Amino acid sequence: MEGQTGPNYQSKPRAPASQDLLGLDLDRRPGAAPLFRQLRDGVRAALLSGTLAEGMRLPPEREMAAALGVNRTTVTRAYQELVADGLVEARGSAGTVVLPPAGAVAPAPPEAPPWLLSLPALGEGSLGPDPTLLRDVAASMNAGLSLAAGTPGPDLLPVTELTDCLQEGLAAWGREALGYGAVEGFGPLREVIASRLGAGLVGPGDGVLVVSGATQGLALVARALVEPGDDVVVEAPAYPGALQTFALAGARLIGVPVDGDGIRTDVLEAVLARRRVRLVVVQPTYHNPTGAVLSPGRRERLLALARRFGVPILEDDPYHELRFADTGPGPLKLADRSGAVIYLATFSKTVLPGLRVGWIAAAQPLLDRLVLAKQFSDLNTNATGQVMLARFLESGRYEPHLRAMRSVYRQRSHRLRRELAGLAEHLEVPGPPGGGFYLWCRLRAGPQARLLAALAAREGVAVVAGDAFGVGPVRSADRVRLSYSTCSPEVAPEAVRRLRAALEQLPATTVTGRDAPVVV
Amino acid sequence: MEGQTGPNYQSKPRAPASQDLLGLDLDRRPGAAPLFRQLRDGVRAALLSGTLAEGMRLPPEREMAAALGVNRTTVTRAYQELVADGLVEARGSAGTVVLPPAGAVAPAPPEAPPWLLSLPALGEGSLGPDPTLLRDVAASMNAGLSLAAGTPGPDLLPVTELTDCLQEGLAAWGREALGYGAVEGFGPLREVIASRLGAGLVGPGDGVLVVSGATQGLALVARALVEPGDDVVVEAPAYPGALQTFALAGARLIGVPVDGDGIRTDVLEAVLARRRVRLVVVQPTYHNPTGAVLSPGRRERLLALARRFGVPILEDDPYHELRFADTGPGPLKLADRSGAVIYLATFSKTVLPGLRVGWIAAAQPLLDRLVLAKQFSDLNTNATGQVMLARFLESGRYEPHLRAMRSVYRQRSHRLRRELAGLAEHLEVPGPPGGGFYLWCRLRAGPQARLLAALAAREGVAVVAGDAFGVGPVRSADRVRLSYSTCSPEVAPEAVRRLRAALEQLPATTVTGRDAPVVV
Repeated sequence: MEGQTGPNYQSKPRAPASQDLLGLDLDRRPGAAPLFRQLRDGVRAALLSGTLAEGMRLPPEREMAAALGVNRTTVTRAYQELVADGLVEARGSAGTVVLPPAGAVAPAPPEAPPWLLSLPALGEGSLGPDPTLLRDVAASMNAGLSLAAGTPGPDLLPVTELTDCLQEGLAAWGREALGYGAVEGFGPLREVIASRLGAGLVGPGDGVLVVSGATQGLALVARALVEPGDDVVVEAPAYPGALQTFALAGARLIGVPVDGDGIRTDVLEAVLARRRVRLVVVQPTYHNPTGAVLSPGRRERLLALARRFGVPILEDDPYHELRFADTGPGPLKLADRSGAVIYLATFSKTVLPGLRVGWIAAAQPLLDRLVLAKQFSDLNTNATGQVMLARFLESGRYEPHLRAMRSVYRQRSHRLRRELAGLAEHLEVPGPPGGGFYLWCRLRAGPQARLLAALAAREGVAVVAGDAFGVGPVRSADRVRLSYSTCSPEVAPEAVRRLRAALEQLPATTVTGRDAPVVV
Repeated sequence: MEGQTGPNYQSKPRAPASQDLLGLDLDRRPGAAPLFRQLRDGVRAALLSGTLAEGMRLPPEREMAAALGVNRTTVTRAYQELVADGLVEARGSAGTVVLPPAGAVAPAPPEAPPWLLSLPALGEGSLGPDPTLLRDVAASMNAGLSLAAGTPGPDLLPVTELTDCLQEGLAAWGREALGYGAVEGFGPLREVIASRLGAGLVGPGDGVLVVSGATQGLALVARALVEPGDDVVVEAPAYPGALQTFALAGARLIGVPVDGDGIRTDVLEAVLARRRVRLVVVQPTYHNPTGAVLSPGRRERLLALARRFGVPILEDDPYHELRFADTGPGPLKLADRSGAVIYLATFSKTVLPGLRVGWIAAAQPLLDRLVLAKQFSDLNTNATGQVMLARFLESGRYEPHLRAMRSVYRQRSHRLRRELAGLAEHLEVPGPPGGGFYLWCRLRAGPQARLLAALAAREGVAVVAGDAFGVGPVRSADRVRLSYSTCSPEVAPEAVRRLRAALEQLPATTVTGRDAPVVV
């Protein structure tokens, strides 16, 4: 954010900065409100009084921190809350700018009741620089070409088969199947998951819970296991949805680096030896965003660490069935003998995102907690999707569909990599992936991924800047995640042409220094 | 629970009670763990050591409190946590009994990792006597006859129309409609909600958010508005899902009584004058469980109080369209000029529960917070249900369906009341309802509703004991909620015959004293 600003990042003139806030009077007596809240409220007051007007910049974080004699994180947190409240907007190189007092992200209109303005930010500003990232990526699907979305191509959705399955399922199970169902999920779906997909995964002491997509799975695990202040280990980089979900639950995130063999178990061991970690969250197979597969040796090590330190592992596994070869790495949970692994899968990547159906396999006592959390989240998962999928799996349609998808995604990955080869002067592209949806590319121009994403959007192609995947010191600001899943051979050349146009607008200089990313 | 136990309640011999716990040593020094936690952990230790074995009873709450010299609520809270952990079970008259160490609700098997047993209860035991009530009521649909479920009859679900709507919708909007959608909801559905259902409800400053059923709507509002320790006003009695959701969010629930004209606004005013209340949650129309409709005068008063005290109102409105007359009371929000009302509706009662689709209309700045909370709950609502409903509404199928449902439910309410007339010596049945699903009946035998529910289940008919709807001193233990929505004329006589058999087993004596309910 502010700290990354350098002369090379400016794409437009800066807005005038407000100096008034630098003299803000903070109450430092014991028992006073936390400093970040006082600062946040001070800015709010300035907005209400008109001292701070639309289009003005807040003082840069570092300057503000120095002027007020507070820690920089105090300022960061206050600013993030103001961003989450829709009062200001972090505009990268342009600073943190006051928004107009009307429209979708504006403060409450004058007639709105006062309780609206007094609300604290959700998650106390812990959501990082992009609280609405997932929403924005979804929206990008409808604007130009997308190399951003981690979703099956719209041309690949087995819609006719699924509507057939709904009819067949209703014939088999009766219309009652669409009434309120069990919180745990639709019986025939849970059975076919346990017998087919979960062969070896769903152990004798395990239960299966159907969830409303992997997003809900993450939220339920966070709710059932994590209390505010708990340490949770995540991969660095990692899927932003997981980072934000556990941050919102009040967890302190500890990022353990991922390399070509997956999470660094040596670093993890050091962390576990020093801290009481509540949960370790990993994507061992076709990791998002790097595509890494956890090596066999590290899998063994990871399970041994879980046993030794008595810490559970959440295996978030949306991609292992989307391998390109006939065989490939299976879930980590297959090798788990100690009940440490909570396994989370989804049909959103393999079949159809709009179904909102995923599933969790975990030791029954934990599953009971998750069922309770599910009951208070949405009572149960939508029945139409569960009936469709139960029949889709049971009737033997799933495996041929998967085989077809693997072939398509392999082709798309090859085609996109071929097109990207022409951008070698700008972009370092990884080797051919073994599965999944993503290429985790490095910008030769350095940590300018957010600027690139903005320029690319202007050119009509969506990409995701690496920053969103960063944890702690691992910022990944020189990385961009390109997805080939929705990029058919017909559109690949044009998507890459637009990306080139954006890359060519990036300043050539590489910025280094205290805000440069720690490269993974 | 334990306190309601009297000699007349015993239907089977009591299990042996453990006396060992009465000598538990509690650390009362400042800084020590809260007493309820120490007690909970002491019981856990006794379970692990085998001092407390399967089938034994915990000492009654009052006895335990006296022996340890602690407040009775301390004991209640510890026991509730143990219940939520699946270690013991509250068995009404049989006391709080240790469960067997295996099976679905048992403590972790010996090979389970230690972190499982060390987990605190979800919501810190704040879920009341029936944490899994909603789940149990749903399950009751599959066991004998049900006068318990607040759900459309399985024979009334417009399944064929909805599968037609899916086909028509996909033809109109394309297969892409089933991909990841906007967090806010499927565009055509939001539009038809705003233009048809929301006419006058969705004001110019309001937005619409599609949610995964009303349960999620409650959870999102709790997440977006309520912080632990906040005061939230609820109706007493009230829908248990709402009570549990806000309790789980850490709210302190303040119950304001409901009478025949809805929530007592005079009591509410006194509460608002004395406390800083974060939110008021009401069902103004065909209230669950009482069926009450908030009178016009109280509606005006309620809105005036919201303005005066600057407190938002959550209007939970699943039932207003299920009125029996051609016209009836509309939503409270129609009269709201100040943006104080957050309106929550669902299609689960009017159309089909398995769709899991509801919606919220609220002032845009608040809606933005709800959208963010939604993003981290399940990303978006299932697309099949949204496409079905968008087409169902748009094609004009909704209104005739509603008219048919009104007629059916009116007939069912009349038929059930007629059958119940034969039970007048046992049950006080309210007058004919104006809409909704429920009859809130009083037991002439006094506060024995939980015992009645257990006896009725044994006879093969499910009912919901009033206790679950109680808040604070309003226990409603002499009430039973009977639902006619799934009770067709064919089964009504048999359902009531079974209920009579259960009622006849109730001890005739009315118990009064310190644990008797405050009658509403």
